[in-house]
Amino acid sequence: MRDGFVSIDALTERVTAIIANAGFSADHAAALARTIVAGERDGCKSHGIYRIAGCLRTLEAGKVVPDADPVVAEPDGAIVRVDAKGGFANLAFTRGLPVLAEQARKSGLAAMVINDCVHFAALWPEIEDITAEGLAGMAMCPSYATVAPAGGTQPLLGTNPFAFGWPREGQPPYVFDFATSVVARGEVELYRRAGDPLPDGWALDADGQPTNDPEAALDGAMLPFGGHKGSAISTMIELLAGAMIGDFTSDTALEWLGTTTIAPRHGELILAFDPARFAGGRADPRATAEAFIGAIEGQGARLPGQRRFAARDKAMNEGIALTAAEFEELDRLEKEGVA
Amino acid sequence: MRDGFVSIDALTERVTAIIANAGFSADHAAALARTIVAGERDGCKSHGIYRIAGCLRTLEAGKVVPDADPVVAEPDGAIVRVDAKGGFANLAFTRGLPVLAEQARKSGLAAMVINDCVHFAALWPEIEDITAEGLAGMAMCPSYATVAPAGGTQPLLGTNPFAFGWPREGQPPYVFDFATSVVARGEVELYRRAGDPLPDGWALDADGQPTNDPEAALDGAMLPFGGHKGSAISTMIELLAGAMIGDFTSDTALEWLGTTTIAPRHGELILAFDPARFAGGRADPRATAEAFIGAIEGQGARLPGQRRFAARDKAMNEGIALTAAEFEELDRLEKEGVA
Repeated sequence: MRDGFVSIDALTERVTAIIANAGFSADHAAALARTIVAGERDGCKSHGIYRIAGCLRTLEAGKVVPDADPVVAEPDGAIVRVDAKGGFANLAFTRGLPVLAEQARKSGLAAMVINDCVHFAALWPEIEDITAEGLAGMAMCPSYATVAPAGGTQPLLGTNPFAFGWPREGQPPYVFDFATSVVARGEVELYRRAGDPLPDGWALDADGQPTNDPEAALDGAMLPFGGHKGSAISTMIELLAGAMIGDFTSDTALEWLGTTTIAPRHGELILAFDPARFAGGRADPRATAEAFIGAIEGQGARLPGQRRFAARDKAMNEGIALTAAEFEELDRLEKEGVA
Repeated sequence: MRDGFVSIDALTERVTAIIANAGFSADHAAALARTIVAGERDGCKSHGIYRIAGCLRTLEAGKVVPDADPVVAEPDGAIVRVDAKGGFANLAFTRGLPVLAEQARKSGLAAMVINDCVHFAALWPEIEDITAEGLAGMAMCPSYATVAPAGGTQPLLGTNPFAFGWPREGQPPYVFDFATSVVARGEVELYRRAGDPLPDGWALDADGQPTNDPEAALDGAMLPFGGHKGSAISTMIELLAGAMIGDFTSDTALEWLGTTTIAPRHGELILAFDPARFAGGRADPRATAEAFIGAIEGQGARLPGQRRFAARDKAMNEGIALTAAEFEELDRLEKEGVA
């Protein structure tokens, strides 16, 4: 087998079949495949087919409900609540989105609360779905405790992703999505495999002392990005998207799961804003935003998401580039159907 | 004159009189004095009586309306809009707060938009007012362009503060409030006066090159905290609390003002969440939050705001400590009434 290209549709079909064959319902398989293929399409290998194995491992561990039927409640004021019933969050989000968008247009601002979901991959696909509705979006969720708060010594926070998007006309949205840890845990794992020392400021060992040893870091704690400020944002995510929505924080999520090798269960909080309503006719929010975004590009700074959108353009034209090893992994998953 | 103590009430009276004598309406003088004295009380010297001069300079420059009568509109869905009419934001916030709190309890989630306000001092007093209502709060606003986006070379972003608070029973709220620049501009100014080089990663010179020279930094641009992640959050603030609410972004704010030596005019966005509504009866959000906050303290990490609350306790008991120079400054402001 050799490196080569696969069309977005063909890859979607293969990934959907692998996930469905493992035991997930058709709706879940479609929602998960969409997210995984979006990762590959956009050049985010860490959120692509690499994730299929973790998805199947989570199922084998009995920590995700493969045929969960998420239920979207009637909005309670500005709050749209989706009960994911222990399934992956992706389908729950997709089902809740039209109600969230309608409520945001009605109230100007609305929140989607997803409870009892299993986290899967990135938040930016959800944020892009919100911007596609002409709305601005903010999303956040806990994870499992692998990060020490600034000034602390032990894992308590998750890598807690925070994502935001702003809709743009005739071009990709302004979207960012990042872990509130200095790096993702997988990055530390890559240093371990390569036998390279970690940069300063990434991690603590099990005694809470700064370490450059990846092995010691994996036994200890990662650190939040940006010192006490990034740490503060991560704690906000625990409070708003954990405690407030009546769901796990990262420490109770880890307790429930008992491992960091499969996908974490928790809740998620998503806010949607209708710019036209917020502007109240004072000025055109889109035009002001375009001038601002243009000024970022005008000084040569890259927009967040820019690399992703460039990779997407390429994949739409040429197909998705996979290595021989990735083709082999797909073959193996198709034949053996296990993680 | 000697270093000494002044009671909170006595200092409030003196500051209120100075501001009123300068030409501000009684309502504005009271709102500003409350914020300034809160800064002194909580040991935040940079937001204390030091700010009176800037307040008066802004008035002398004709860039704040001293008797503006902020108008709170009927809520539009979940949005409570306050027209500050060119006055300082503090009074506008105070007037809008009861409506915001009522709307948050009604909808679960509500937003206050303050337009055409002049920024004054910190966001944490506002956040504390929200937590005092039993609500969680998030606040943000642009500033004026002094910070380059990550990867950029020129000032475009403001120091854009971001603040959050969570209500706690029987003890001070969990509150943080920080500039999204590495440091506040005043910090760079302190290095300049001391003739000390800036730490790496704080600033760029006018050519967009990294610099350790405070003078060059003040002519160039500061950098956001936390690299591209902090930069992303700062851009979110420009979009949500600038473009979206039909108000200035930091670059247009600077254009309008023409200087960074007086207070910036722009808008502000404040979100209020009702935890009980978000939890939907699933679990007690306060109890989960207390367990989480306890775990932060349990590993010896300081809570954000902790120093401020300790200083407040002390000030409530002993009065506020002022230096001889600070007493002299108050005397001078009382006699001369100018910045």
